[in-house]
Amino acid sequence: MAEGVAIQKGLKDVVFTTTSISEIDGEQGRLTYRGREIGSIVENHTFEDVLHLLLIGDFPKAESDDEAQSSAHRRLDEILAGARDVPDHVKELVRLLPADVDPMSALRTSVSALGDARFTWPPTLDQAAEIVAKVPTLVALHHRIKAGLDPIDPDPALNLSANYLYMLAGERPTSTKVKALDAYLTLTAEHGMNASTFAARVTASTQSDLISAITTAIGTLKGPLHGGAPSEVSNMLSEIGTKERAESYLRGILERGERIMGFGHRVYRTKDPRAIALAGVARKLAGSEPWFDLALYVEDVATRLLEEYKPGRRLRTNVEFFAAAVLNAIELSPELFTPTFAVARTGGWMAHLLEQAADNQIIRPRALYRPSIG
Amino acid sequence: MAEGVAIQKGLKDVVFTTTSISEIDGEQGRLTYRGREIGSIVENHTFEDVLHLLLIGDFPKAESDDEAQSSAHRRLDEILAGARDVPDHVKELVRLLPADVDPMSALRTSVSALGDARFTWPPTLDQAAEIVAKVPTLVALHHRIKAGLDPIDPDPALNLSANYLYMLAGERPTSTKVKALDAYLTLTAEHGMNASTFAARVTASTQSDLISAITTAIGTLKGPLHGGAPSEVSNMLSEIGTKERAESYLRGILERGERIMGFGHRVYRTKDPRAIALAGVARKLAGSEPWFDLALYVEDVATRLLEEYKPGRRLRTNVEFFAAAVLNAIELSPELFTPTFAVARTGGWMAHLLEQAADNQIIRPRALYRPSIG
Repeated sequence: MAEGVAIQKGLKDVVFTTTSISEIDGEQGRLTYRGREIGSIVENHTFEDVLHLLLIGDFPKAESDDEAQSSAHRRLDEILAGARDVPDHVKELVRLLPADVDPMSALRTSVSALGDARFTWPPTLDQAAEIVAKVPTLVALHHRIKAGLDPIDPDPALNLSANYLYMLAGERPTSTKVKALDAYLTLTAEHGMNASTFAARVTASTQSDLISAITTAIGTLKGPLHGGAPSEVSNMLSEIGTKERAESYLRGILERGERIMGFGHRVYRTKDPRAIALAGVARKLAGSEPWFDLALYVEDVATRLLEEYKPGRRLRTNVEFFAAAVLNAIELSPELFTPTFAVARTGGWMAHLLEQAADNQIIRPRALYRPSIG
Repeated sequence: MAEGVAIQKGLKDVVFTTTSISEIDGEQGRLTYRGREIGSIVENHTFEDVLHLLLIGDFPKAESDDEAQSSAHRRLDEILAGARDVPDHVKELVRLLPADVDPMSALRTSVSALGDARFTWPPTLDQAAEIVAKVPTLVALHHRIKAGLDPIDPDPALNLSANYLYMLAGERPTSTKVKALDAYLTLTAEHGMNASTFAARVTASTQSDLISAITTAIGTLKGPLHGGAPSEVSNMLSEIGTKERAESYLRGILERGERIMGFGHRVYRTKDPRAIALAGVARKLAGSEPWFDLALYVEDVATRLLEEYKPGRRLRTNVEFFAAAVLNAIELSPELFTPTFAVARTGGWMAHLLEQAADNQIIRPRALYRPSIG
C-alpha cells in the first residue's frame, strides 16, 4: 500500500452502508425511527410499539390486509411476553460470578451463555425477539443475586418496562414509573451507527450468530466513551446535592478544564431531541420531586456557565443528563444505568443486525503498515 | 446527509489506521510480523518468541542494554507460563454449558467470564499476556468436559503448544507434534486488519476492557466467512478419502458451481506465504503419512482443475488447506480447528488492542439514511 494514502482515523465521516432504521439530523436536532419523529412516538406509543417499528418496520396492526405482516406482529408480541425466562444453566452461571464483577461484564457473560445451536445464520425475527425478551431478565437476575436477593420470575402479563422493574425490585411498580421507564427505553432504543451497533454489525458480517453480535455490542457499550456516562451525571448531581452548591461546583469543573457530564453531543449542534422529550416526561412524572428540581436548576446554571467559559460552542443538555434524572426518579441505582441502556438499545441492535444480514458483506477496512521507530 | 455520497460497502479499501504489527503484500505473497518474514520466523523461532515479537516489538532478550525492555520480556515469559490456570468459578461455569453448545460459543462465554475489576482502561501488557496464557486452557477445559473427561491442569514447565496438546489429550505430546502446532500457531497468529481484529479494536475504542474486546474477537471469528473454513477442508479431504476418488470428487464440486475449500484468498494473488511455510512443516512432520500424501495429491489435482474451470484466476492453496493437513496430522478433531485458530490469533488481537489503546479514537463510521420502499 502506498504512503500518502488518506487515513480515515475513527472512520468519522466514512459511510459504509445505507440504513432505513433511523435518521439523525444533527443541525436540526431531529431523530426519526423509520421516518417517525421520536417526540411524537414517545407521546403516542409504548416501547413494545417501538420494538415492532424497529424490528418489523411498522407499528403493530393486529388485523391488516397484509396477513403476513399481521402474523409477524402477533408472533413478535408472543415472543416478547412469552420468552422472557432464561434457561436454568444461565441462572446457575450468573450465581457463579464473583462479587466484584460489574453488571455490564455479567450481562456480557450471561448473554453469551444464551448461545446454542438454535442461533444460526441468517438471523431471524424470532431469534431477535427472543434476545430482546431475555436481556431485561439477565440484568435483573444479576442485580438480585449480587444484592443477595432471590431472583424474581418474569410475569408475562406485564409489559416489558413493568416486568423489568418488577424483576428488579420484587414488587409491582406504579404506572407512573412504568411510563417513565417506557419513555426512556423508547428514546434510547436506537441511534444510528454508534460504536456498539457498528461493532455488532462487523461481528454479524462474518455470518456469525445474533448471540455473538449482541455480546460484541454489550462489550462495546461497556466502554465509558460510549455507554459509561449516565451514572457520572447521577454522581455529579448527587455531589452537588443542593441548588446553593450548583454554581460553585460547576465553576470548579470548568476552572479545572474538566468536562461537565451530560452536556454536548458529537452529532447534535442544537439541543438533543431525546433530551427535550425526556425532560418533558420527567416534568410530568416528578412534579415537585426535589431531586428533579435540582436537575432542572443544574441544567440552567451549567448552560449559562458553558456559554461563559466556552462561548459559541452551543453545549446543551444531552440525553444522558435527563436519562439520569428519569432513572434516578424511578429509583434505579447508578450501576443499573448502562445495563438499562443496553435493555433499550437491544431493540436497535437487533434491527441493525437483521438489516445487515439482509444485504451482507464482510466488514473489513485496511490498516496502513508503518514500522515503529526504534 | 446528502444523497450521492460514496458508500464504502464493507469498508473494503478504506484505511482507518496505521499499524506496525504486520504487513501483507498480496501481489508478492509476503507476510511480515514487525518487519520479519514469516518464512524465516517459523524456521528459527518458537511461538513464544512470536508472542514477544507481537506484544513487545522484538524477540526475547534476557539480557540487554535496555533494562526496561529486558524486564518486559522476563515478565511476559513469567505470565505466559504462570498464569495459565483459570479461576474455579470459570471451570464450574464451563461445566454448566449444555452439550449442544459449540466450542466457539463456549470459548466466547468462558473468556467473557474472566472479566473482573482488574481489567481496566488502558490495557496493559500484563493483562494481554494473561489472556494469551488462559485461552488455551479454556479451549481444552470445554473440550475435555464435553467429552466427559476430567480437565487437565496446565503444566508451567511445558511451552504453550506442548501444554495445549497436553491439556487436550491428557498425555505428553511428541516433540514432532509440538513443533507442528508451534508452526501453525506462529503462522496464524497475526494477519493485519481482518474482521475479528477490527471488531475487537472497535470494542476497545470506547475504552472498554481487553476481556470485552477479545470476547468480540471470538464471536466475530466464529462466523464461517472468517474462522469457519478449516474444518470444511478437513471434511472435504475425509470425504475424498483416497487418491483415486480425488479428481471425480473435485470435478463434481466445480461442475455444480461450488467452491473448493482451501483455495483462493482475497488478498494473495500468488500463493499464500503461510501455506508455503505450513506445507514445508507438514512435509517434515508427516513423512509418508498417507493422510498427508492425500492432501498434497488433492492440492495438485485441484490446482490443475481450477486452471481448467477458472482459467487465469490463479487460485492457489491458502493457509486453511495446509492448516487442515497439519491439524489433522497432530490429531486435533475438526471442531477444535477454529478454537485453535483463536489460540493463535489471540496473540495478534492483543498486539492490536495495545496498539489501538496507545493512540485511541472511537471508531464509528456513518450510515446513509434511505427509507425502505413499501
